[in-house]
Amino acid sequence: MGRQKVILEKMARIFQVRNVLIRQALAECLGTLILVLILSGGSHGMFLMVNFAFGFAATLGILVCGQVSGGHINPTVTFSLCLLGREPWRKFPVYFLAQTLGAFLGSGIIFGMYIDAIWDYGQGSLVVVGDNATAGIFATYPSKHLTLLNGFFDQMIGTAALIVCILAIVDPYNNPIPQGLEAFTVGFVVLVIGQSMGFNSGYAVNPARDLGPRIFTAIAGWGSEVFSANSYWSFVPIFAPFIGAMFGVMVYQLMVGCHVEGEARDKSETDEKEEKERLKLSAVSEKETV
Amino acid sequence: MGRQKVILEKMARIFQVRNVLIRQALAECLGTLILVLILSGGSHGMFLMVNFAFGFAATLGILVCGQVSGGHINPTVTFSLCLLGREPWRKFPVYFLAQTLGAFLGSGIIFGMYIDAIWDYGQGSLVVVGDNATAGIFATYPSKHLTLLNGFFDQMIGTAALIVCILAIVDPYNNPIPQGLEAFTVGFVVLVIGQSMGFNSGYAVNPARDLGPRIFTAIAGWGSEVFSANSYWSFVPIFAPFIGAMFGVMVYQLMVGCHVEGEARDKSETDEKEEKERLKLSAVSEKETV
Amino acid sequence: MGRQKVILEKMARIFQVRNVLIRQALAECLGTLILVLILSGGSHGMFLMVNFAFGFAATLGILVCGQVSGGHINPTVTFSLCLLGREPWRKFPVYFLAQTLGAFLGSGIIFGMYIDAIWDYGQGSLVVVGDNATAGIFATYPSKHLTLLNGFFDQMIGTAALIVCILAIVDPYNNPIPQGLEAFTVGFVVLVIGQSMGFNSGYAVNPARDLGPRIFTAIAGWGSEVFSANSYWSFVPIFAPFIGAMFGVMVYQLMVGCHVEGEARDKSETDEKEEKERLKLSAVSEKETV
Amino acid sequence: MGRQKVILEKMARIFQVRNVLIRQALAECLGTLILVLILSGGSHGMFLMVNFAFGFAATLGILVCGQVSGGHINPTVTFSLCLLGREPWRKFPVYFLAQTLGAFLGSGIIFGMYIDAIWDYGQGSLVVVGDNATAGIFATYPSKHLTLLNGFFDQMIGTAALIVCILAIVDPYNNPIPQGLEAFTVGFVVLVIGQSMGFNSGYAVNPARDLGPRIFTAIAGWGSEVFSANSYWSFVPIFAPFIGAMFGVMVYQLMVGCHVEGEARDKSETDEKEEKERLKLSAVSEKETV
Repeated sequence: MGRQKVILEKMARIFQVRNVLIRQALAECLGTLILVLILSGGSHGMFLMVNFAFGFAATLGILVCGQVSGGHINPTVTFSLCLLGREPWRKFPVYFLAQTLGAFLGSGIIFGMYIDAIWDYGQGSLVVVGDNATAGIFATYPSKHLTLLNGFFDQMIGTAALIVCILAIVDPYNNPIPQGLEAFTVGFVVLVIGQSMGFNSGYAVNPARDLGPRIFTAIAGWGSEVFSANSYWSFVPIFAPFIGAMFGVMVYQLMVGCHVEGEARDKSETDEKEEKERLKLSAVSEKETV
Repeated sequence: MGRQKVILEKMARIFQVRNVLIRQALAECLGTLILVLILSGGSHGMFLMVNFAFGFAATLGILVCGQVSGGHINPTVTFSLCLLGREPWRKFPVYFLAQTLGAFLGSGIIFGMYIDAIWDYGQGSLVVVGDNATAGIFATYPSKHLTLLNGFFDQMIGTAALIVCILAIVDPYNNPIPQGLEAFTVGFVVLVIGQSMGFNSGYAVNPARDLGPRIFTAIAGWGSEVFSANSYWSFVPIFAPFIGAMFGVMVYQLMVGCHVEGEARDKSETDEKEEKERLKLSAVSEKETV
Repeated sequence: MGRQKVILEKMARIFQVRNVLIRQALAECLGTLILVLILSGGSHGMFLMVNFAFGFAATLGILVCGQVSGGHINPTVTFSLCLLGREPWRKFPVYFLAQTLGAFLGSGIIFGMYIDAIWDYGQGSLVVVGDNATAGIFATYPSKHLTLLNGFFDQMIGTAALIVCILAIVDPYNNPIPQGLEAFTVGFVVLVIGQSMGFNSGYAVNPARDLGPRIFTAIAGWGSEVFSANSYWSFVPIFAPFIGAMFGVMVYQLMVGCHVEGEARDKSETDEKEEKERLKLSAVSEKETV
Repeated sequence: MGRQKVILEKMARIFQVRNVLIRQALAECLGTLILVLILSGGSHGMFLMVNFAFGFAATLGILVCGQVSGGHINPTVTFSLCLLGREPWRKFPVYFLAQTLGAFLGSGIIFGMYIDAIWDYGQGSLVVVGDNATAGIFATYPSKHLTLLNGFFDQMIGTAALIVCILAIVDPYNNPIPQGLEAFTVGFVVLVIGQSMGFNSGYAVNPARDLGPRIFTAIAGWGSEVFSANSYWSFVPIFAPFIGAMFGVMVYQLMVGCHVEGEARDKSETDEKEEKERLKLSAVSEKETV
């Protein structure tokens, strides 16, 4: 045991990264990797309780990286927190990149695991749309009857609902969840929103989770069609969620957030004023006692 | 960052509402909006695990507004707490209105999201009853064989069971749930009751969740038939739940509540008496020592 | 409000029961009533996620009465705790009676709610076994191929597994569950055991939940056949669970319980000895200092 | 009651095991027994929500033995903790043996419970592969199209994902889960991974859970074919998970663990240094004051 401990510690020192932002990026990368690993693994099966796995994929992703990076694993969450001034804006591109990279790597593992089945199902080729399409295991493709505009609206409302719920869960002035259950709660939110709104466009509401796997499929052999298919649908799950996030932040702040924060601010200001008053008084009384 | 913070704070001050009741009404409105958004989104899909989403729709609604308004999102809950003297009666109409408004707005968003699909399913018209009926996405309509009386009894028992469980969960003298898990627990209650009693009448047990969307459909084009269909069924999910709530309050108080409260009261009275006794004694002993 | 409070308090004083055992019996009665209300409600539907409701029916039952009576809602649980000396034996008959009564009343409510559907399904008569049988909504009847012995073994193992898990959850020296989550955990246990062992005999593992509704059906019109059907099956879910409970208590104590308790006892005895030793020493040192 | 207590205590003293490792082994044995009892019970039914039971079988197993032995119930978990130097290596063979024994005993109980059904389904003989195969109730057998290599990769990735999540949950420097909810969280992890990755090879990721029942079936009458079937598949679920565990430990440590631990170590070293500095300073100041 003694020698093992020494070796382990030496290795730990070699691989330790001291820059906080890089560490957070690594954690976000692993978290999103786990998310996509489980999501795409589930998609492959296409079985009934897949939505259940969908929700808890998010829970596991958040559990893995939550303590280090905050467990966003979704650029729209990072974006919303930056909008509210709770995270610095420079985190946004780093997290977005790390999340997309994690999603990319997760797709790679799934591709390796199911390569035989994918090849078999596609009858010897990697097809993006149609009956033997296999690209849908990785990124989302809309159902046939969905117009681009309707899909955009869908992704927007879905993300807005997600952000309203997440803001309620992590609101520093209005925290209804016991310490340590945020991951589960966010998993429930993703699960419930996925179940009630995932029909039209295959449920993404996460630009990194869609873009990373899409880039992977483009490289792995499906080709550039993954971007151009369904009249350039691929840009919808990248942009619509951010607009939805803005909308969600606005609705939550106007209907709940502003007032709770305001009350906290008013209170602390009153406390300050009272403190000043008290100090003045005590100064007076000190003078008097002198 | 500095400038962003200043702007954010300025905006927050502009939009801050200081009246507590209005703030609570806004929160209830948002909570019920989320509830209906997810419920009707799920109804549209009509898929298997819809009941699962049903339960957690309530959880999310409560999470969003719980800390501000108590997270009733159901007028029968407000009504029961007023009956027990735990909330002032003037909250009841305000909450009822806010909850109905939230449900109304939630239906509007769902209508916007699925307008193509609704139009398509109804073959170019908005039908209330029959094979191409789409009104059932929003409000409840009973299954064919259900008589009004049976439906009334159904809604009544369902609400009574709901209220008994909710009173057990929030009982100030008998709180079995860890702080912060009430929302989940109520979600479970709604889920379980919905699963075991939701067959006959499509599971409402919430007047606001039924009335708001019904008014929306009346305005949006389904017309006044939404109220008169099924021999004026529409009044059942408005009145039956309140009678069920009264019944539930009675059963819980007689079988559990009264005795637990009574014990607490007896104890505090005994403490008071002992305190008085002690004071008298100490007065005596003081005299004696004098 | 003032007058309402006065009236409420007056009523509370009238209905308050001061005897602790009666209060606990009332609570157990309500808890088992809720359990059966939801179980039988779910049975009526016979739909897919019924097992899910099964598990949480137990959770709700425990939540409603847990703080007052301990939330047994199952005579085998009361029996096991008496066996281990954690509850006095005189509680056992009182709880058993209250639980059976609660199950009886719950069946009555379900009968009232679904009387039309039951009448319809049975084509105008109340049938115990066969194609139009409706008695299975209330009590359990074994599947055709099940022998009495196999059914007995089934109920026994199911109850043993239930009791092992419940003892682990409520073990005073080995409590792995956060305060207040016991109800949920027991719900999960019931759910999981029900899912994995509920096939052969329709999942009872609770004598009160089976006997109460069976008596109700005998009285309500199904007649004495409910007891004699399937070669007097009705006695299996009454006796087998108690034997299973004994078995479960034995296995848990031998493999986990004894050792954990023993350690705690050893420790407290050591502490006592050390305390005595310390007292002796301090006495010595006091003498010496004198 | 008095006499019962005396007898109970006497029995407890007789059966109490004082050796900690044996006690832990007994607990692991019971935990894995419960795991297999529920898993195989569920497999027998082959019904839809079986995966749900799968996940919570792990939860129950961990609940039963968690406080005594740490609740591994999976040799790869013991192995990973030994690799990281958190458990001594001598625990590994003892736990592995106890877990395999528990799985063996669990299979025996299931065999006893369903012996009629198994005999019936196999048409009078115990068949390992083919249409009337019943061996799959106990151990895993791959689906037809799965190559050994693909199966190996499958089990490896599945175990790696499991270990990454478990390490995140139990990380002493990065504990995101409230005390006492680890059992549930691990259950969720097993559930989610089982749902998303359990298709190809029937989901084992636990050598003890596969080997114990396989040995049982070999003895109970299925014969040595249970080991040789599918070109010696039986060795895959024994070795692949350990390699996956190594892989999972590496990924977690490199991407999250090392950095968090490193920070903790840096901090404690800094604290030590500061402490020394402070001591030196105080020594100096003491000298000066002298």
